[in-house]
Amino acid sequence: MAGAKVSNFSPLDPAAAEPFYRQIYDRFRGSIASGLLKPGDRIPSARALTKELGLARGTIDAAYSLLAAEGYIQARGQAGTVVTPGLKLRTPVADPVPQAATRVAEVSFRPDSILPFQMGLPALDVFPRKIWARLGARCLRAMQAPDMVHPSVFGLRALRAEIAAYLQVSRGINCAPSQVFVTSGYRHTMELIAHAFLKAGDRVWLENPGYPPTRELLRHMNIAAVPVPVDGEGMVVAEGIKFAPRARAAVVTPAHQSPLSVSLSLPRRLALLDWAVRNNAWVIEDDYDGEYRYVSRPLPSLKSLDRDGRVLYAGTFSKVLLPSIRLAYLVVPETQVERFEQITQAFAGGSPELTQAIVTAFITEGHFARHIQRMRKLYAERREATVAGLERVLGKHMRIDSQPGGMHLILRLQGRRSDRRLVARMRAAGLYGEALTDWTMDGDGASALLLSFTNIDSQTSAEKLGKRILQLI
Amino acid sequence: MAGAKVSNFSPLDPAAAEPFYRQIYDRFRGSIASGLLKPGDRIPSARALTKELGLARGTIDAAYSLLAAEGYIQARGQAGTVVTPGLKLRTPVADPVPQAATRVAEVSFRPDSILPFQMGLPALDVFPRKIWARLGARCLRAMQAPDMVHPSVFGLRALRAEIAAYLQVSRGINCAPSQVFVTSGYRHTMELIAHAFLKAGDRVWLENPGYPPTRELLRHMNIAAVPVPVDGEGMVVAEGIKFAPRARAAVVTPAHQSPLSVSLSLPRRLALLDWAVRNNAWVIEDDYDGEYRYVSRPLPSLKSLDRDGRVLYAGTFSKVLLPSIRLAYLVVPETQVERFEQITQAFAGGSPELTQAIVTAFITEGHFARHIQRMRKLYAERREATVAGLERVLGKHMRIDSQPGGMHLILRLQGRRSDRRLVARMRAAGLYGEALTDWTMDGDGASALLLSFTNIDSQTSAEKLGKRILQLI
Repeated sequence: MAGAKVSNFSPLDPAAAEPFYRQIYDRFRGSIASGLLKPGDRIPSARALTKELGLARGTIDAAYSLLAAEGYIQARGQAGTVVTPGLKLRTPVADPVPQAATRVAEVSFRPDSILPFQMGLPALDVFPRKIWARLGARCLRAMQAPDMVHPSVFGLRALRAEIAAYLQVSRGINCAPSQVFVTSGYRHTMELIAHAFLKAGDRVWLENPGYPPTRELLRHMNIAAVPVPVDGEGMVVAEGIKFAPRARAAVVTPAHQSPLSVSLSLPRRLALLDWAVRNNAWVIEDDYDGEYRYVSRPLPSLKSLDRDGRVLYAGTFSKVLLPSIRLAYLVVPETQVERFEQITQAFAGGSPELTQAIVTAFITEGHFARHIQRMRKLYAERREATVAGLERVLGKHMRIDSQPGGMHLILRLQGRRSDRRLVARMRAAGLYGEALTDWTMDGDGASALLLSFTNIDSQTSAEKLGKRILQLI
Repeated sequence: MAGAKVSNFSPLDPAAAEPFYRQIYDRFRGSIASGLLKPGDRIPSARALTKELGLARGTIDAAYSLLAAEGYIQARGQAGTVVTPGLKLRTPVADPVPQAATRVAEVSFRPDSILPFQMGLPALDVFPRKIWARLGARCLRAMQAPDMVHPSVFGLRALRAEIAAYLQVSRGINCAPSQVFVTSGYRHTMELIAHAFLKAGDRVWLENPGYPPTRELLRHMNIAAVPVPVDGEGMVVAEGIKFAPRARAAVVTPAHQSPLSVSLSLPRRLALLDWAVRNNAWVIEDDYDGEYRYVSRPLPSLKSLDRDGRVLYAGTFSKVLLPSIRLAYLVVPETQVERFEQITQAFAGGSPELTQAIVTAFITEGHFARHIQRMRKLYAERREATVAGLERVLGKHMRIDSQPGGMHLILRLQGRRSDRRLVARMRAAGLYGEALTDWTMDGDGASALLLSFTNIDSQTSAEKLGKRILQLI
């Protein structure tokens, strides 16, 4: 059977602009789209196809990884590789490359495996696993009846208190533990905020470019996203006021704008708060990595300037501890505690007792503060090493933005190169990257790569990886 | 200061219908409502008040527990007891007792401490904590990079596979792991279902009486709940069709109706599926404790009869393992997998890797199946012992429904006694109970107590507790 499918291949074109792996990818994609290959059909093994076409095994592997990453095929071990059962193509295949790039972008925020440059991850190699495992084992051994029942949907009392104390010291936020609500991540925080304070048809300012999942979530709730441009001082508040003065909320990343990493300037911060007060609007401060600033002390949060109770502060443990623990939090103004308690009781499942208990112990015993200090130093080093390594190899093709903080780099592509196309190739070659264009609301912004440096351990590693990118340009 | 407040007490009335604890409770509540006592004000210690009024310490304690349970006061250790800071009364105090009962009902589904008869809990004393702690410590020690990044928002692959296999054997459900979505609890499951398949203004059938949080959640999403009566065969499907033939969904508890514990009869099951197919409506099967049936084998699920992909099956580990792990799941029809993947990616934070890994190991190694077997036997014994003990003491005042399964008893109050009033008194006396009236949508149903038996370890214990209830009638 497999042989029959392979024989459908007309010879590949060595003179084509597209490399072989891309040609193979396009053929399979075309066959699937046209119905020649149906969901559940077996396709030849990479080994068989390598032999049949007389190409390097790596070429076939690259094509198959891309097809698998985009959901077209599935490896089934002994049973071989098949076209994904139940696969439905959403749109006819017109222009394979941009289409492929779009699909990659769709899945790009949560890849299946860990790749070099992967965004949103802390340094995994230096996480204090032994301490963590020890605290966890202790919590498990100490489990008594009160730890076995439904945890408070607001979050563990002790954890809320630790978060409030931490925010006071590190982010200049004055709040009582009762104002802190533990959630299972940024999406969950945003969803609860939307249930509490927004309704279908409302308009919300979003930074443009900005974190794509926010607009996805609002779209599903029929809330209209109003793109507000970002310049060197962060969100251009005056433009927001011009476009949508009566918006119900603004989502901002004041510490390091996501993804441009610029800080929201003080005049802008004051203008934003002033607008919110005058319009009874909400400012949602997404402080996802405010701790990680390398050129000066971390900035106080926008929330610390909030005299009128208009700022909802969203923090997370994903970046400062681990994403796998699914712990984030929201600080609401004192006046909104009761409203938010109702919403949390109606919607929230609560976070598992165990993970909350481990994090609480980790903070209480001083490991948390030490870990952040250590990571700040390490990230400053890794950032510098990664910039040096990539500039050396890719300097002719890209310009690296200089930024005061954050966990990723921005590499501006020279000329009219498509960041989406490059990202799709990188993914096929086993490298992570995100395209700035995919973070831009009209999909028509500057062309740049977003690459995380947190897991790049030396300049040598960065150079090696840079060379792999160079081959894909 | 404390003395000054106490001296506001005019003498209590020994001839009044209300017992002393209730009179004290009413006084404090009145003083708070009238502003005589303000949030943050200290109130006398229970000891001081006991002395001042010359009453039994237990009387004062009962009043204070009720005030604390309802959020009016807070114990502050050394700092004494204060009126809850930030407290806002939602409605003026007109009729203290029903008002109080309503407030108790509002908080009753998630009390702060573990009380006798508490609903929704498995037997905590016999949970295999050592095995659990051992598996947990092993997962923690084995933590590698892939366990540290964002877990799949659909749920751990291995856990989804274990759930699918379990449902096949135990509930007659044929599904692929890709149809199983891990959530953080029933509310979370319902919320995701609502995002995926319902919209504001839709109508949804709910069993009446039925689990109150469901209607709360729908209310917050502006979805109209249509109460459908329940009789000895479960939800009266014909009435649903009569009242709201075009409803978009029906939420049912076919195994043991929540709270009446009757099973949905086969003709009703078929009628419900038939209605759903003809109207493209969804049937949400909440199978919260389908495993626990004592008089015959557990019934196959409604989902197992679903030939047309109209049933969304909601299961949970809260009852068969522990509520503190916050793990539940939803099985969607194959045709809805893609839709549900989109919704989960937009909204779900994902569940922590660690708890999912522990549960997976617990299932894989056979502990789960053994635990359910053991609990089924234990609950049958505890149910029988609790019924015997309570009937002996309370038989004149209440009639205990006989039911084939579930985790709680239904005690019908004789005469025109208010279940809400009795529940408020029980709570004040440190006993848990829920009022059937609070589970009824017009608030005007039969008067009965709902009491869990899972943590009552003998007939002697049940008798002792029964005597405490007897004093409150």
